[in-house]
Amino acid sequence: MHIGILGAGQLGQMLALAGYPLGHRFTFLDTSGSPSADIGTTLNLDSSLNLDADSTTRPDSAAAQSAAHLAQFLQQVDVVTYEFEHLPVDLVEKIEQHKPVYPSSRALKICQNRGLEKALFTQLSIPTPEYQLVNSAAELHAAVATLGPQQPLVAKTLTEGYDGKGQAVIKPKASTTELDAIWNQLGQRQLIVEKFIDFEREVSIIAVRDTQGKVSFYPLAENHHDAGILRYSLAPLPNLSPAIQQQAESLIQALLQELDYVGVLTLELFQQANGQLLANEMAPRVHNSGHWTQNGAITSQFENHLRAITGLPLGATTALAPTCMLNIIGHKPDPQQLLQHPHLHLHLYGKTERPGRKLGHINLVAATTNDLLEQVSQLAPLLPQAPAPKFSCLANKPAAPLD
Amino acid sequence: MHIGILGAGQLGQMLALAGYPLGHRFTFLDTSGSPSADIGTTLNLDSSLNLDADSTTRPDSAAAQSAAHLAQFLQQVDVVTYEFEHLPVDLVEKIEQHKPVYPSSRALKICQNRGLEKALFTQLSIPTPEYQLVNSAAELHAAVATLGPQQPLVAKTLTEGYDGKGQAVIKPKASTTELDAIWNQLGQRQLIVEKFIDFEREVSIIAVRDTQGKVSFYPLAENHHDAGILRYSLAPLPNLSPAIQQQAESLIQALLQELDYVGVLTLELFQQANGQLLANEMAPRVHNSGHWTQNGAITSQFENHLRAITGLPLGATTALAPTCMLNIIGHKPDPQQLLQHPHLHLHLYGKTERPGRKLGHINLVAATTNDLLEQVSQLAPLLPQAPAPKFSCLANKPAAPLD
Repeated sequence: MHIGILGAGQLGQMLALAGYPLGHRFTFLDTSGSPSADIGTTLNLDSSLNLDADSTTRPDSAAAQSAAHLAQFLQQVDVVTYEFEHLPVDLVEKIEQHKPVYPSSRALKICQNRGLEKALFTQLSIPTPEYQLVNSAAELHAAVATLGPQQPLVAKTLTEGYDGKGQAVIKPKASTTELDAIWNQLGQRQLIVEKFIDFEREVSIIAVRDTQGKVSFYPLAENHHDAGILRYSLAPLPNLSPAIQQQAESLIQALLQELDYVGVLTLELFQQANGQLLANEMAPRVHNSGHWTQNGAITSQFENHLRAITGLPLGATTALAPTCMLNIIGHKPDPQQLLQHPHLHLHLYGKTERPGRKLGHINLVAATTNDLLEQVSQLAPLLPQAPAPKFSCLANKPAAPLD
Repeated sequence: MHIGILGAGQLGQMLALAGYPLGHRFTFLDTSGSPSADIGTTLNLDSSLNLDADSTTRPDSAAAQSAAHLAQFLQQVDVVTYEFEHLPVDLVEKIEQHKPVYPSSRALKICQNRGLEKALFTQLSIPTPEYQLVNSAAELHAAVATLGPQQPLVAKTLTEGYDGKGQAVIKPKASTTELDAIWNQLGQRQLIVEKFIDFEREVSIIAVRDTQGKVSFYPLAENHHDAGILRYSLAPLPNLSPAIQQQAESLIQALLQELDYVGVLTLELFQQANGQLLANEMAPRVHNSGHWTQNGAITSQFENHLRAITGLPLGATTALAPTCMLNIIGHKPDPQQLLQHPHLHLHLYGKTERPGRKLGHINLVAATTNDLLEQVSQLAPLLPQAPAPKFSCLANKPAAPLD
């Protein structure tokens, strides 16, 4: 099949690399102005696209060119998906009139708005940190008073936040001036304010649902962020109790069913000291915290997403062995040095260096979690500005056997 | 790096798929007229290429266009390799004057001529079936008389034979008429006549040598052919004795060293009833009998070939678990049916159906050889015209545990 992908970054590239062996070919529709997928065909869409522009009457205008690219895209592809959820919903709705789009524009609409997402969590009785929506500085002050001025809170823009962008921590007893500064810093637009959760660890569950409604779940991963950007994912989650895995599965299952979802869905969660899970946010796509599946699971998240949207049976989601994904951020380490490690799997995205930019990742797979963590500790110093890995399983018992 | 590949079929495609994550990009030079790689850039070269044609004086001629494509290829690429050894040596020698070519034109020259290959085996004391070179029907008669008219022999063209093409079996006590018919059938050109080996099994060893001379070996695979075309490869070789693996490694090591080889080399061998190995032929490239490494080894043959030719350290060649590769020949089975098997890895090449054409392969990985063979037996009937798999480990003791 010819698969259309909205967005043309590394997730799209990795989808294509997983899709060639299934016989698929790919066309990307890029709205970012900086596509990097560099495989198959990439068509550019001006972000100011007027969906009703007529490419025949003013063939030279940027809008007409975009309309022509969109027409070409629709003509080429059999099915459409996305690698990036910050897309104009009206564009996706328009595409949906011509070709099947998975996940649907409804899932996209909810996932790109934290307010709608939280409302869905609440509707489905999915536990989530207590929150308030605010539309002004005054409402921000009131929300802080309601949620508890003595404790840390976090304010986030409703849309377009990712990799720690569009959010700010509100310190306990923050002054009016401090709150006004946050209101200004985040662009004076609608915010969500929620309790800052004192979690034991951040985890994520990735599930995939096919066109028949069959669902497969990957084992939970433990994720470590630095400056809002994912640095490490460790999977299967060390010290994973089957009850916690099952709790996570039932939460994401409720979402998949309600959205009549097709493809990979990611749910980020906080695990509290009592073991319970609270939903943080979800992403309607393959996810950085699932890159470990490329080398650590029988079928990768990329292949399973493609199998789902093309109507094929899902592949096994079983983990092969303990796996750690390490992100490469900002600048590229020397491959000569990295690949001295004979078991390391390198995944570069072909992007140019820029501070905070995800340029690639590494997957390490080992026979035991202890072996794996030792390898991760040795490797981390080779990665640019990588913080020392501190996994929950090491917190209180660094010398204890884990397997 | 930008890697140039001579040939543009499935091996080139799989090299590219393995190379994107290392940050490489690819340009293919196709001389077959039917490129299928469909990734990166493909440039066509007319098979009647005059290497000295001037593209500026007669820009419209096929020869000039080929010369222009060659110039473009040389300008784009940093290093050159091949996925197909039946290439004009003078073309490769010309390319070698401008860009590094791995493996070298010397390795190519030897591997594409069975006479030179046999002479090298003899020079390096690599045991190989007894043979004679013949240049006429009369010499063919004489060779049969010398090698033994009472036993089966095989006649092969010196060049361009693959997948069973360009060879014929000479039955015991073949008549003069039958021998003349073989001489005519194989095109009245120089042949090699050799003893038909009554082997226990056909095996292959794949090794990779980097630019520093460091060598890694994959475990031996057992190969099953049907009508001259590979159907199954099972690796690591069941009931593999370390002595046999070591014997195979020492044979291929001698070849790698003599040729100052860089990249993946494949040596096909016959294992006789007494356990000893006889060299059949070699291929200066990634090989169908190494496709199992994509899902069954830590680093695939494709990735290791690229690491070698780009000067990077080699990845581990250790097998993860017993693996079987099943070729898809002639026409494509229904992926819907195949992928019901949740552990199956499907690799399609994007080629159109044609009798005897390799269209894809399947890799199956299992915890034990017994499990694996059971899965292979279940799957084989779904593949077009696949013979029932008969692996050596099943021959005398089908019920015995293998692990």
